[in-house]
Amino acid sequence: MVSVAIMGHGVVGSGVAEILTTHKNKLFASVGEEIYIKHILDLRDFPDSPLSDRFTKSFDDIINDIDVRVVVEVMGGLNPAYDYVKRCLLCGKSVVTSNKELVAAHGAELLSIAKENNTNFLFEASVGGGIPIIRPINQCLVANNVSEIAGILNGTTNFILTKMINEGMDFDTALKLAQELGYAERNPEADVEGHDACRKICILASLAFSKHIYPDAVHTEGISKITLDDVKYASIWGGVIKLIGKVKRLENKMCDIVVAPMFVPSNSQLANIDDVFNGIMVRGDCTGDVVFYGKGAGKLPTASAVVADVVDCVKHLKNRKYLFWTDSDNSSVIDYKDSVTAMYIRANAPDTAFAYNKAKELFSDIHVLEKPDAKTGEIAFVCEPLTYNTILKNIDILNDSGIKVESAIRIGDL
Amino acid sequence: MVSVAIMGHGVVGSGVAEILTTHKNKLFASVGEEIYIKHILDLRDFPDSPLSDRFTKSFDDIINDIDVRVVVEVMGGLNPAYDYVKRCLLCGKSVVTSNKELVAAHGAELLSIAKENNTNFLFEASVGGGIPIIRPINQCLVANNVSEIAGILNGTTNFILTKMINEGMDFDTALKLAQELGYAERNPEADVEGHDACRKICILASLAFSKHIYPDAVHTEGISKITLDDVKYASIWGGVIKLIGKVKRLENKMCDIVVAPMFVPSNSQLANIDDVFNGIMVRGDCTGDVVFYGKGAGKLPTASAVVADVVDCVKHLKNRKYLFWTDSDNSSVIDYKDSVTAMYIRANAPDTAFAYNKAKELFSDIHVLEKPDAKTGEIAFVCEPLTYNTILKNIDILNDSGIKVESAIRIGDL
Repeated sequence: MVSVAIMGHGVVGSGVAEILTTHKNKLFASVGEEIYIKHILDLRDFPDSPLSDRFTKSFDDIINDIDVRVVVEVMGGLNPAYDYVKRCLLCGKSVVTSNKELVAAHGAELLSIAKENNTNFLFEASVGGGIPIIRPINQCLVANNVSEIAGILNGTTNFILTKMINEGMDFDTALKLAQELGYAERNPEADVEGHDACRKICILASLAFSKHIYPDAVHTEGISKITLDDVKYASIWGGVIKLIGKVKRLENKMCDIVVAPMFVPSNSQLANIDDVFNGIMVRGDCTGDVVFYGKGAGKLPTASAVVADVVDCVKHLKNRKYLFWTDSDNSSVIDYKDSVTAMYIRANAPDTAFAYNKAKELFSDIHVLEKPDAKTGEIAFVCEPLTYNTILKNIDILNDSGIKVESAIRIGDL
Repeated sequence: MVSVAIMGHGVVGSGVAEILTTHKNKLFASVGEEIYIKHILDLRDFPDSPLSDRFTKSFDDIINDIDVRVVVEVMGGLNPAYDYVKRCLLCGKSVVTSNKELVAAHGAELLSIAKENNTNFLFEASVGGGIPIIRPINQCLVANNVSEIAGILNGTTNFILTKMINEGMDFDTALKLAQELGYAERNPEADVEGHDACRKICILASLAFSKHIYPDAVHTEGISKITLDDVKYASIWGGVIKLIGKVKRLENKMCDIVVAPMFVPSNSQLANIDDVFNGIMVRGDCTGDVVFYGKGAGKLPTASAVVADVVDCVKHLKNRKYLFWTDSDNSSVIDYKDSVTAMYIRANAPDTAFAYNKAKELFSDIHVLEKPDAKTGEIAFVCEPLTYNTILKNIDILNDSGIKVESAIRIGDL
């Protein structure tokens, strides 16, 4: 019997307790011994829980219990999660977390502490919910040099964009619907402004390139400014708008990493990932493109990924798993303004012929997008790949020439 | 340093040797020691290989070398692969294989020998080439009861069907093109008649349900009878024809397993998997649907999956991986005639009104498919789910009534 403790009894935490209970026999068959929930840490009371006798309000009950070999952290947030996880690892307890904020902010340090203490720090559930992604990258693709990872990493924004694309709903209405359905928080900023996706692409990039990339080094744009006009122009171009987290290793080994809405061509595997689903493409030098698809959030999908990590910890109580990356000062990340991308630009001009000529002059080669019901004075085009810096400068020149740029969205090379 | 031997220096084998050489540093960083190719078994001579000094024509050089801890079997076929693999496992050497025929025919026995000898028998590359699938099902989805697996498991047939769907090429022309491009063998039977897909769905089913299912228990249909008319009717219905390997666990714990062409609705994740790519959907009770996509064959994708298994063996020389299923007499597989499915039926009738009435009488509810350029006397419809047995009987009655059934394709509930 191996004793585990669960810190947090919210959505994911209660799911972990549920799966460890309902799937006891299957897990026993896999592990060869019982996984016993000894403590559940939560400040709230759960008198009606079948596990009500295991609840505690004190972290001391966990840290001081030498029986507890694996600790599940599903509280979320950095405090006190960071402190608790660190202390668990320092005493040699394995830790499993679904907390992407924690891993993105302190992954390198916690992995290093785990290594020093010959224990495991696993976080499959921190990216892609129930989709296997951390273990496949770390183990199945170990014989590959990964050159790029790109994904739809946030279900809330993908739900909103799907409603905009398929039902012509505007952003505000789609966001409200997402909130009503429980897909978006009352304060939706972390999702709609891309911060959640940013943490996830940081974790994947750190894993793939063995060096921690921190969220503050990543240029992040959300989807709140996307309009239905943009959605229509994407369709005319031959694709859809998706919020993409993307990291690419350049030839000089530097990382080009960004979170932003992008035009994704219809024939891309990422174009057909709708609603709250996530999809992640990993490009390896041997495998080529591999794509993982599934539910990126939710109680049981996320909890099942946590439990899979618990099982792995139990099987490796003495042998550390080889999951590791080193700390870094983000110096391997290029300035986002040096990143090269093609761009969709929509603008309003008093004289469209003049505006298109000006655009051609600035961007050299443009592909004009014609919308049958375009408003008077509306122009839209896609430019060839240029540095983001050049694009920004050109946008300034357009604006100064009376051509008001209303939207600029990257073309995803996906 | 850990010494390995590679049996077979064909497409995959030479890829394994290449990756172990070119990715040496990355692998060293992951494993913590060097993986050294000590022997390569092949009856042919490779005097120009940089590893020419490691070649042997004698299996004895491998089996008698106690230094060799991991043996890679990439010869293909059952003989002598089966005998060699068994003997390696019996001496405690770990074995990694990409040989689906071997795993589908002898997996249970070889896993059992590996267990008794406290060693590993791994075969990630046997299904889905470079796509991570065995390890994700076995490890990442361990906290799930898998209820269904369905996949496009054969790249050759998917390439042929894609050409038929997107370019209106007929079967024979598409097959010839596949052969010219090296995607299909000169004798294409194993691919086009579904035997290759059958072996793969057997491996996945055995893994997911922990009991060996042998290929001879699986009703298998190929794609050689699919016509461009069927492709058009699938499009009118709202989907595409794909060769699907599918296993479903019924409520009574019996397995409903089949390999057959199926109508796949356009909004299914499997509908958009084109060309030589594979895609596999795994339905878990906690995760919901998870889909894995990538190159299902080819030298480096397959070899990279083999090398990932080699790495896992090297990391687990003393601890066995928990990959196992028991033998069985196929008694958990239902008779394919008892399987329930909706069906597309195309027929030729002297009197189409009479024919549709007869079809309605037999199938109770039918959905007529109308093709603008249908030949005189051609009828096509989709019936509601019925046992395959009932459908076959009804087809006999239609034929006896002068309504000649020319095509019957399952509707994939995917």
